[in-house]
Amino acid sequence: MSRSQDDAPAPRPWTRLGSRHGASLVLFRPRWDRLVNPRTSEEFERLVLETPDWVNVVALTADGELLCVEQYRFGSGTVTVEIPGGVLDRGEEHGAAARRELLEETGHTSERWRYLGAVEPNPAFQDNLCHHWLAEGCIRTHALGLDPGEDIAVRTLPVADVVSAVGSGRIRHSLVISALSRVLDLRLPE
Amino acid sequence: MSRSQDDAPAPRPWTRLGSRHGASLVLFRPRWDRLVNPRTSEEFERLVLETPDWVNVVALTADGELLCVEQYRFGSGTVTVEIPGGVLDRGEEHGAAARRELLEETGHTSERWRYLGAVEPNPAFQDNLCHHWLAEGCIRTHALGLDPGEDIAVRTLPVADVVSAVGSGRIRHSLVISALSRVLDLRLPE
Repeated sequence: MSRSQDDAPAPRPWTRLGSRHGASLVLFRPRWDRLVNPRTSEEFERLVLETPDWVNVVALTADGELLCVEQYRFGSGTVTVEIPGGVLDRGEEHGAAARRELLEETGHTSERWRYLGAVEPNPAFQDNLCHHWLAEGCIRTHALGLDPGEDIAVRTLPVADVVSAVGSGRIRHSLVISALSRVLDLRLPE
Repeated sequence: MSRSQDDAPAPRPWTRLGSRHGASLVLFRPRWDRLVNPRTSEEFERLVLETPDWVNVVALTADGELLCVEQYRFGSGTVTVEIPGGVLDRGEEHGAAARRELLEETGHTSERWRYLGAVEPNPAFQDNLCHHWLAEGCIRTHALGLDPGEDIAVRTLPVADVVSAVGSGRIRHSLVISALSRVLDLRLPE
């Protein structure tokens, strides 16, 4: 399907000679791999952050509005607007995790679920996937049960406002945008 | 623009009481922040991976095909299809970095550049942005100068194939998809 430039050969997987783990970073387990570049036969050490798979949910209400979650994020140091999502529990299937995260973070449930596929949050140094799900006709069935380490507000956004919020940068988590792009046309105006 | 559920107050920024850094992870500098949740006044420690901003480029040839980069990625352990991109050098402006990465990774240059905005790779634990750029009418002007730690092949993909490659998962780096979504309609078929 693709045309090569210069007929360059397709890059091959590198050979892993060995690995060592670093101290856990709670969210991640650092791993240093010793690898050989097959193009040059030279050895390199590269970092991988081992982490479980993630999931997030494009959740639409019966009115067709998007369920959003506002929370303070420690990396950006800002209050962000995102869609519900989180980390898979050990042994949990990603569809179950999607239902659990939607319920925990928004108090909503849905009977109409569709799998939107998976992306790599960052294949350069993370070994995990983020699974995207669509939940339609969501209704509020439970109260929010926030733990002491959480401070979340649930909002609904008309779909037209979602597109403009992505364009303006008000919504700017890359994994949120990746999920939304499977349901909404996010192209910027020419 | 958004409607609140339960009139929940907007979450406020957490107060940072202090920070300590961990050993460098080359790509990242781990930082542990001691924070207070304003909703509960309880204290928590949270990890941030400090990292420079990134950039990537939706680069179209004069024929309107997308320039792609194939390379082995250490996190996923696979050969991926991505768009050119990388880390800003210290003090480098992101527009200059976009031009540099396009040239280094594909040997192409362009005279038609458009800024597509920035996203947060992951605001939960990273403090950086990824800037998206569009380069149109790209032409091959230089040879590839790969260093010993690189093994990259440059490909061109018709735009219709790009959309199907995202849908099929052949292209699945979230930051690549985020950039592409500003130029292409990536919605899945109903």
